[in-house]
Amino acid sequence: MTGRHLLIIAHGSRRQASNDEVRALGERVRALRDPGIERVEVAFLELAEPGIPEGLATCVAHGAREIIVFPYFLAAGTHVANDIPEAIEVFSAEHPQIKVRLASHLGASSALPMTILDVASQVE
Amino acid sequence: MTGRHLLIIAHGSRRQASNDEVRALGERVRALRDPGIERVEVAFLELAEPGIPEGLATCVAHGAREIIVFPYFLAAGTHVANDIPEAIEVFSAEHPQIKVRLASHLGASSALPMTILDVASQVE
Repeated sequence: MTGRHLLIIAHGSRRQASNDEVRALGERVRALRDPGIERVEVAFLELAEPGIPEGLATCVAHGAREIIVFPYFLAAGTHVANDIPEAIEVFSAEHPQIKVRLASHLGASSALPMTILDVASQVE
Repeated sequence: MTGRHLLIIAHGSRRQASNDEVRALGERVRALRDPGIERVEVAFLELAEPGIPEGLATCVAHGAREIIVFPYFLAAGTHVANDIPEAIEVFSAEHPQIKVRLASHLGASSALPMTILDVASQVE
């Protein structure tokens, strides 16, 4: 039990199938059963539930001592630069005992170029 | 010289920094110098240049015999399901000698869950 939870934050869409695709991605990450991550949650910035505060609260309710927040965004727009950090700030002010670490957004992650080459090599 | 080119297709944004972020990603993929991929190009569905036809034409001009099209999209919306396949169909009708293979969009790619865990494990 590491007490480390992963919260994947997506934008959220009016199109429910897109939100469900994010939830399914959360399931796929969960299914890998990373020994360093005790729990994987998904939350949405807007237009879908749960929102970011609810996602963070779920982690707390399940005993998180550390939460890694992963912005599932391609570009570093205002959501990544401002909205997500602000939501973390509000949470941290209320839960100073829980360490929150903000990961690079997907589009800037160092692993992404290799992932794209993997996809290209696997195409039928 | 494999004759295999990779064309990364992003949505495109009114925000130039987002488009530049995609171009920088193309550079990062290029820098990995995958021996199976002769050339990496980036194109945009809308709002930015080059468009998909121009991106495909650049591959042709540089001797592509096979083009792997990678939709850099998180969700399987109408762009992924319809617009990109239609653009490929138009191209293929004009260039029947060039094999075009359409990869999974990023959000559905099998490598993505592990990529997310990699990002989580690297967070400071």
